[in-house]
Order: sequence, then C-alpha cells, then structure tokens
Amino acid sequence: MDYSMLSMPVGEAMFTQRSIRRFRPDPIPMDILHLLIEAAVRAPNGGNRQIGRFLVLTDRAKIREFGTLYHDAWYAKRRDEGHAWTRAEDIPATDKNHRSAAGLADHMKDVPCVVFALATNNGPANSVIPAAQNLMLAARTLGIGSVPTTLHATVMDRFRAMFGIPGDVAFHFCIPLGYPADAKFGGSLRRPTNETTFFERWGFPAPW
Amino acid sequence: MDYSMLSMPVGEAMFTQRSIRRFRPDPIPMDILHLLIEAAVRAPNGGNRQIGRFLVLTDRAKIREFGTLYHDAWYAKRRDEGHAWTRAEDIPATDKNHRSAAGLADHMKDVPCVVFALATNNGPANSVIPAAQNLMLAARTLGIGSVPTTLHATVMDRFRAMFGIPGDVAFHFCIPLGYPADAKFGGSLRRPTNETTFFERWGFPAPW
Repeated sequence: MDYSMLSMPVGEAMFTQRSIRRFRPDPIPMDILHLLIEAAVRAPNGGNRQIGRFLVLTDRAKIREFGTLYHDAWYAKRRDEGHAWTRAEDIPATDKNHRSAAGLADHMKDVPCVVFALATNNGPANSVIPAAQNLMLAARTLGIGSVPTTLHATVMDRFRAMFGIPGDVAFHFCIPLGYPADAKFGGSLRRPTNETTFFERWGFPAPW
Repeated sequence: MDYSMLSMPVGEAMFTQRSIRRFRPDPIPMDILHLLIEAAVRAPNGGNRQIGRFLVLTDRAKIREFGTLYHDAWYAKRRDEGHAWTRAEDIPATDKNHRSAAGLADHMKDVPCVVFALATNNGPANSVIPAAQNLMLAARTLGIGSVPTTLHATVMDRFRAMFGIPGDVAFHFCIPLGYPADAKFGGSLRRPTNETTFFERWGFPAPW
C-alpha cells in the first residue's frame, strides 16, 4: 500500500484533530476510503485475531435510511439523560454541546460516508477502537472530518435488520466522514493532564 | 505543547507500528512521557466528558510488584483457554504467539514503564481507547515500542489494592512502554481488507 499521501507529521495530526459534525456533500473518493481502511487495520488488536470489521456506507439511499435511525437513537439517549426533547429546537440555545450533536442527528442523512466499526463473535471494543482512531486520524491528515458516535439499545434490532448484521457481531462506533462544511481543524479543549494522569499510584499527580 | 518532535509522517507511523514485547531497560525521559500523554488526550472521547485516566508506573519496585500480578493474570487467561501451562517452558515451541506473549509475562517486571488506561465512573472503553492508540502511535514515532494488554478478572482486586484504584474506576488497557530490545518496527500481518470491510450491507465486499 502506498501511504505517502499520509504525509502530515503525527504531532500535527494528533494535536489538530477535533470532532467535525457538519460536512460538505462531496463524496470521498474510493481510493481514499481504501487508504483509510488500510491505515485503520494496522492498529493493534488482541492476539492478532482481527475480529474488527468495517461496514462502509456511501449509497445515498442507505445513508438517508440510516439518518432516520440515527436521529431516533440520539433522542432516545437524551431521554435516558432525562430530557424530553424530540427536535433540535427543544434544546436550550445555551446548551451548545447538545445543540451541536443534535445538528449531526438532523444531518446524518446527508453525510457523504458513514463507517460502522464492528467486531465478530461479539468481540470487545478494545480490538476495534484502536483501528477506528487510526481511521479518524488518517482522515484528518487528508482534511476529512469525523466524530465517533454510538447508537442506543432501542434501535439495535432495526440497525441489524437494516444492514443484515448478524446477532453475534458487536457494534462499537458509528463514524460519519466528510470534508468539513465550516469548522476548521485546530485542536480540542482538554483538562490539564496533571489532573487526569497519575504516577505510581492512583491520586498521585503527574510531576509536570 | 511543543509537538514538533512527533515529526514522523502519519502514514509511516501507522504502517510500521507493531507490537513490541521485549524492551531495553533504559528509562523513558519524563518530558517524553509528558508529550505522549498530551498527544493521547487529544483523541476524541464521548461528549468531551474526559472520563479517561492514565496511571503511569516508572518506579522499579512498583513495576516489579506489578510484574508478578501480570504473570498470574496471563496464565489465568491461558487456563480459561484450556491450557494447563504455568511457565513459558510448558508452551510448545511451535506456538510462537503464546511463546512471545509468555515472554512479556515473564519480563513485565523489568519493563521501564507501564501505563494503565482507566476510566472514571466505570466509563466505557470507547472514551479511553482512542487515547491509548494515540499514545502508542506517538510512542512509535519516537522509537518507543508498546503493546496493549489486558488483565484477568481474578487479579482485579489485587490490582486495585496494589495501586489504590477505586472500585468505580474501570480498567481498560495495560501498556508496557520501552525502547525495543531487538524487534524492528516494520508493520504487521493483516488479512486483506476486502475480507474484513463491507460496503452498504454486511457481507458485501469492499470494491478493491
């Protein structure tokens, strides 16, 4: 595999990755999707049993169908959080995180590509999520945005029926992919790492 | 954060990452550990709730103590697989995967650094494992090897007591880090991606 297109330095890619939730409609060329998948599967997986599977949607009708399911799933999760919202307008304008995520719930039907990260034999997240991060980081390198999302238990039967996914295949991530509509890559807000990293024993802060 | 040291192209880093299980004793400088953690936390996490936590071991006595626990955990997993092995010599020489992993079980006590990927509120793997992959990929960029490993249920109480880890903190990965003793970076063996990637519907192979 010729991976020379992924020429961005690792530091720049990691420190400028951010969640992208609004996409231009432009399709991602097939050779780029191929490169992203090849980069993804290089990530470590348990015992090299390679239980990870990717299901890629590029068909407009399929994505539109999935968009409705994703919308239902997103609001079902909000109900679990105690919110009675059923549409974006119900969410307080001050709640920017939920507003932004609700925007994706509305627009999932229009994204150019969706990738599901799955695992055979109901395999664990830890054998497919490293690959999903490779996929998103490689995408960022090519100016393609993404955000890892999940689904809600109430839609899983519909999800399996919609895409013919067997009962023993675990779902781990739903990742929309596309060229950003407006947001610029440029990093993310994180807590200081000496609050989230300990040395030698839990609660003993990092020495920086 | 100055991330200019992470200058390797993303493609080269991803396509040459491989599991490293034998390490030189040389310590990893603290400023490098700091950079690896900063790179790690840039990865996406659910709702930016930042439930991921890292616990880093560099103290020789602590790592030695943990090495015994890891050894017990590794052989407990082999018992689950139906193997009665209690030491590396019990494993057939032809079973290279288990032999290699058993080597790490023997030598975990000597590695220069161990990083545990954890999550508060018993949080899910999907909010900390992207960060763990960033950590391992950034490490590879600096010539530092790693391999993601897990522990066995039978050692978890000891593990929590050993490091003061609260009961509501979930364990996700144990990652030894160090400069490789012998193995060269150079990629990993993977199945053809058109066997593990589907388009539009489960079972419909990728078009490459």
